[in-house]
Amino acid sequence: MTAHPDQTKAGAGRIVISVDAMGGDHGAATVVAGIAHSAKKNPDIGFILHGRRDELERLVAKRRHLADCTEIRDAPDVVSMDDKPSHVMRHGKGTSMWSALESVRNGEATVCVSCGNTGALMMMSVLRLRRLPGIYRPAIAVMWPSRNPQGFNVLLDGGADIRADAKDLMQYALMGTSYARNGFGVARPRIGLLNVGTEEHKGRAELREAHDLIAANAQTSDFEFVGFVEGRDLPGDTCDVIVTDGFTGNVALKTGEGTATMIAERLRDAFAYSPLSRLASVLAYTSLQRLKKRIDPRRVNGGVFLGLNGTVVKSHGAADPTGVSAAVKLAFQLAQSGFSQKLAARVASAALPPQDASSDDDGGTS
Amino acid sequence: MTAHPDQTKAGAGRIVISVDAMGGDHGAATVVAGIAHSAKKNPDIGFILHGRRDELERLVAKRRHLADCTEIRDAPDVVSMDDKPSHVMRHGKGTSMWSALESVRNGEATVCVSCGNTGALMMMSVLRLRRLPGIYRPAIAVMWPSRNPQGFNVLLDGGADIRADAKDLMQYALMGTSYARNGFGVARPRIGLLNVGTEEHKGRAELREAHDLIAANAQTSDFEFVGFVEGRDLPGDTCDVIVTDGFTGNVALKTGEGTATMIAERLRDAFAYSPLSRLASVLAYTSLQRLKKRIDPRRVNGGVFLGLNGTVVKSHGAADPTGVSAAVKLAFQLAQSGFSQKLAARVASAALPPQDASSDDDGGTS
Repeated sequence: MTAHPDQTKAGAGRIVISVDAMGGDHGAATVVAGIAHSAKKNPDIGFILHGRRDELERLVAKRRHLADCTEIRDAPDVVSMDDKPSHVMRHGKGTSMWSALESVRNGEATVCVSCGNTGALMMMSVLRLRRLPGIYRPAIAVMWPSRNPQGFNVLLDGGADIRADAKDLMQYALMGTSYARNGFGVARPRIGLLNVGTEEHKGRAELREAHDLIAANAQTSDFEFVGFVEGRDLPGDTCDVIVTDGFTGNVALKTGEGTATMIAERLRDAFAYSPLSRLASVLAYTSLQRLKKRIDPRRVNGGVFLGLNGTVVKSHGAADPTGVSAAVKLAFQLAQSGFSQKLAARVASAALPPQDASSDDDGGTS
Repeated sequence: MTAHPDQTKAGAGRIVISVDAMGGDHGAATVVAGIAHSAKKNPDIGFILHGRRDELERLVAKRRHLADCTEIRDAPDVVSMDDKPSHVMRHGKGTSMWSALESVRNGEATVCVSCGNTGALMMMSVLRLRRLPGIYRPAIAVMWPSRNPQGFNVLLDGGADIRADAKDLMQYALMGTSYARNGFGVARPRIGLLNVGTEEHKGRAELREAHDLIAANAQTSDFEFVGFVEGRDLPGDTCDVIVTDGFTGNVALKTGEGTATMIAERLRDAFAYSPLSRLASVLAYTSLQRLKKRIDPRRVNGGVFLGLNGTVVKSHGAADPTGVSAAVKLAFQLAQSGFSQKLAARVASAALPPQDASSDDDGGTS
């Protein structure tokens, strides 16, 4: 167990999750509603909630079961969606985001959850938690509903960094392997490299280079490399982990989400169209609810920052309470499984070429 | 009218479409089934069908109504999905793709439709049809179901070229404007530039440069520039045309398609789950068929190459007969509206900065 039991109200034998209550598109009320939902469903979670004390006290006090397992830490400032990461690095110290990461850094909490500005959260996470030895560029791993037996695929990088060279993509393959294996029990994950076609001569030069690097590491790191995959494989069953740069990954995920949301809206319209179709929606209610649960992007909301000393779950800025609760659930599962330690061990034991191993010492300052 | 009536069987007052019957994933039988569907629905279309004569004669002879409006041109070679474009350029002359483009080049047909290798088709189209004066890099414009009144958005580049610099992206905005206005009657198209966030400081450097270039051209070219958009805007209603490089565009489109297909499968599963849900699917049949028609990616199958002297519709390699038929329908609509001439006039009258205008003379050889 990786929980850090302490003597506070949030601790008391629970797995403690540090939550940045500010910075999401919908404000603290949505975040508090989300964690209240999680607290109701899982009595083993405790929260340290970071943000403006008066506002948070008011919101938490309304929910008795939440008040019993939540500590509030006052942080007067908020990182807004418009703040440039460079500005945040200079003036971030009083923010709820900084404070939430601090609880992981000092060991009070196992995992940090934030709905805030992705770029700022990643920069601050790298600065405060530091990269794992051997990792050059951390990435966000995102789950996506798929036809695989486990019900989803993992894509990384989902938007931590808009750039990735061949070596970064190879490291994403290693981290994705570790995430799929330790986080979700896929014994020998199948890794695909996202491209515009599956033919080996297609795509950008750095992708062909990454193709060869990843293939060279498949045996030592015990994953199966399926080669290039396409956008349609994201919800498919050809691989378990899809590797790409954060620009492409972000566009792919948001396109998929937008499409799923549009179809759900149109399905509702179709069922409201006539008396017969309204009757049909009543008869099919249970089946449709099951379907909704399987394809609702909010239910798999939450990306995990891989490659740091500590776990950070980035929820969507636009997450509603269901989305926040899904991110908290993911954070809880990862904390419970001891994922951070297992990933660190995995990366440390990976057979990196000598020129990569030499960069292990810089500790994330480059 | 831009139809080129001739004295052949395919002509006879009809709008003639030149079809590359080979090179798709499912072979000539699927292409012939697709055009047979179109011929049944629209008596004003004539076809010139390019490929292996014996195979095509056998397939067409089975369908009386198709035989009456179709001419076959023998082309013994096929461009396969695995052929490198450079190989095709040297050895492409005997292929069905080359032959199909030739019918547009020599004026026998107004539009060419192919399911073949995208890279090869684009290179061959540029070589044989030549770029329009003023266009540096042609692009594929793809329609996507959206919440807009017209029912879809246009994305370009959908995969003609994996690269695009700021000037290319600005030209895509101009071409997309022309396509949306002349092809679909959107009087003042709203243009969005695809990025990982809507904030102006986000994204790659060339995107910030493109942002400023497109904004500078909005007034003279009479479009509205809505700035950066995200993947979720592809099925949304924030803009009519989304501009991006062909790598990102291709991944976004394939991700959206894959997601739509997965949801459709799961919807079928949900309705087959219990006796009640099966009854519901019977009651809701009409509504669900209407929904299917609105969100089925095969119904909007077909990308249009913009920026050439002549119109080329690229259908999916994996298109089934419904998909091929959708591409033919699009080709017919464009031919009927005189789109090629209107686009050429639009681009010619666009107020390009002097340094761009000077490249008008190279005629597509760079």
